[in-house]
Formats: sequence, C-alpha cells, structure tokens
Amino acid sequence: MSTTVTPTGSGRGRPGYAREDVIRIAVEEFNARGYEATSMGALAERLGLSKSAIYHHIASKEEILVEATDKALEELTAVVEGALAETADPVEQLRLLIGGTTRVLCEYPAYVRLLLRLRGNTDAELAIMARRRVITRALVDVVKRAQEEGSLRTDLEAGVVARLIFGMINSIVEWYNPEGRYAPADLESITPEMVFTGIVRSRA
Amino acid sequence: MSTTVTPTGSGRGRPGYAREDVIRIAVEEFNARGYEATSMGALAERLGLSKSAIYHHIASKEEILVEATDKALEELTAVVEGALAETADPVEQLRLLIGGTTRVLCEYPAYVRLLLRLRGNTDAELAIMARRRVITRALVDVVKRAQEEGSLRTDLEAGVVARLIFGMINSIVEWYNPEGRYAPADLESITPEMVFTGIVRSRA
Repeated sequence: MSTTVTPTGSGRGRPGYAREDVIRIAVEEFNARGYEATSMGALAERLGLSKSAIYHHIASKEEILVEATDKALEELTAVVEGALAETADPVEQLRLLIGGTTRVLCEYPAYVRLLLRLRGNTDAELAIMARRRVITRALVDVVKRAQEEGSLRTDLEAGVVARLIFGMINSIVEWYNPEGRYAPADLESITPEMVFTGIVRSRA
Repeated sequence: MSTTVTPTGSGRGRPGYAREDVIRIAVEEFNARGYEATSMGALAERLGLSKSAIYHHIASKEEILVEATDKALEELTAVVEGALAETADPVEQLRLLIGGTTRVLCEYPAYVRLLLRLRGNTDAELAIMARRRVITRALVDVVKRAQEEGSLRTDLEAGVVARLIFGMINSIVEWYNPEGRYAPADLESITPEMVFTGIVRSRA
C-alpha cells in the first residue's frame, strides 16, 4: 500500500497537503483498517497533523467517503452512459460496459473498493449505495435486452447473470497488480471475452 | 439480517445462549458494523448480556473470528479435497471445485463474507488469510493443469482466470437470496456452466 505524500506547505510541524492527497491517504486508511474503525484522530496521526489541524483539510470522515465514492461512481456512470450512447446493439453495449468498468476498477481500485465495502450504516452510505444500484440495474437491463434479442442464453435469470458478471469484475480491486502481466487495457478485453464465451477451448 | 436468538438459560436478565448462536450473532454484527469497529461491549449489548457476562461465553472477538472462519475454511477445504479425490480429469475437478464452493457460499454466506473481508491487521487474521490462499492456489493449479492438458484456452494466465472465477463465485455472499428463484443446488450447476461456456447463446 502506497504511503507517498506530497507535502505542499512550508512546515513548522504542520504539513500542507493537496486535497487529493488527503483523500487518497484517508481512503488507504479506511481500506486498511475499516471505515467505521478509523477515527479522525487516527487520520490526523497518519497525515502527521494535529487533531485540530486536520479539520483545516476536511470536515469529517463522511466528507472523504462521499468525495472518494463520488469519483468512482462518476467514472462508472460515464462508462454506462458511454456504452448506451455508442451503439444500440445490446451485446455490444454489454461488451463496452464490462470492458469499461474493468478499466475503471484497474485505474481506481482503492476508491471502488471503498464503494464496494459500504455497509449502509448511515444516510450518506445509503445514498451512495442507491447510486451504485443504478449502475447494477443498467447492467441487468442490458443483459435482459440481449437475452430478449436472442443473442444470450436465456436459461439464466438476467439479475443473477449481471451479479455474477459484476462479482467477477469487482474482484479486480482485490487482486489486480498494475505491475503485473496485464495492463488495464488488456483486462478490458479479457473480461468481456471470458464472460461471453467462457474458458473452455473453442472447438472451431 | 436475522436477529433470531435461542435463549437456553433460565433468565434473571442473563440470557443463556448456545455457543453456535453467540458465534452466529457476533458474525452478523461484524458483517454489519465491521470487525474492527465492533467492541466486546457492543457484542454484549447485542446479545442482551452484561459486559462481564459475555466473557462467560467467549474470551475475545478473535476467538469468534477464528471459529467462524474455521467453519468456512473447513467446508471450502473439503470441497477442494473432494474434487481432487473424485477424478483425475482437471476439467471435472474444476467443475466440482466451482460448483462446490458455490454451494458452500450459498449455505454459509455470513461466515464466508467475514473470511473474504479480512484485512490482515493481526496475526490471527494473517493466519486465516494464509489458509484462504491455499484454496486459491488449488484453483490456480487445477486451471493450469486443465490448460496444459489442452481443455482450456491458454491465452489467459491461470492466476488471472482463477481470481476472476473466485471473484464471480465470492460475490454470491453479497447478493444471494435463499428465498429467491435459485436453490444452492441450482447455482452449483449455473456457475461452472457460466465459467466454462459463457453467456452467449451457443450456435449448436
């Protein structure tokens, strides 16, 4: 887990941080210790700030949660909207949707991991989870239309297929290694391929 | 989330619990609030016990964590060993492995969810995660052998294929509804099928 910080202030024991660094480091802490278990005091310590100085940067843990998950949700929503705008063919939409969300997860694993691990214990979390559900529903809808059109097998319920697909993609935030063999662009084509035709060698 | 308890004691404000109920309810709390954020005091309150009475039932949060994840790991390990013992054909082993873990996750979603969300902040957690990795490695190994044998496409690295497969299956603990359309036995055949041949309608 990265611990790089970018102090921008002039010192005297109170490092200055760009806002994006505060968010990024706080999200690292949430993911490592649990959002519920991380106090503002612990965040201050992690940032090398006093308990009062941290409020110069952020008002609350929730503010960080909202900002980080907003970023993830915006990127994912852009994928959905892009896929629906690009083509009217539901199978192509599905390919773009699976590939695009794969890319977002490779690029923003920490923010998406935070998004996926929400438990819904506050109104803010519930609101974020409602936005997450809109994306799931878009995928269910595309699967359904591709089934109706006759391109996909229809023995599996669209809702279950969509959740299994997202399960596969979402796992990326847990294991993807940006220094590994596959670049995000590779995985972007691997996941739709694996979902569409499976792993068995084709008999063609 | 279930809140059923089975008091076995005779009362006077100190309910008696079967040990399995204590574990089950504690795991519900961990999953709802986060393991790190749940105190013994909060567990006592949830169980209707005093802060001192809870120690009559359990020594620590960690004891619960170990016992619950032990159960999940034992079930999953039995699936792996069963699959390897049943047949020498790696594709059949893979089918049994995917189907069997699917069934375990449908049957023990709360315990497996706890297992999957560990962060490795204590030695106990790291030990549990090491046992979890043994199962992942078994899957990677079976995928690799099935690729070598020529049954599976070889353009995808076995490690990535295995992680995408487990990602798909693991998501079950987040969305599976035992009252829904699919019984565990249904999903047990759905997931290998989806992994093997994908969702596109076959041209046969």
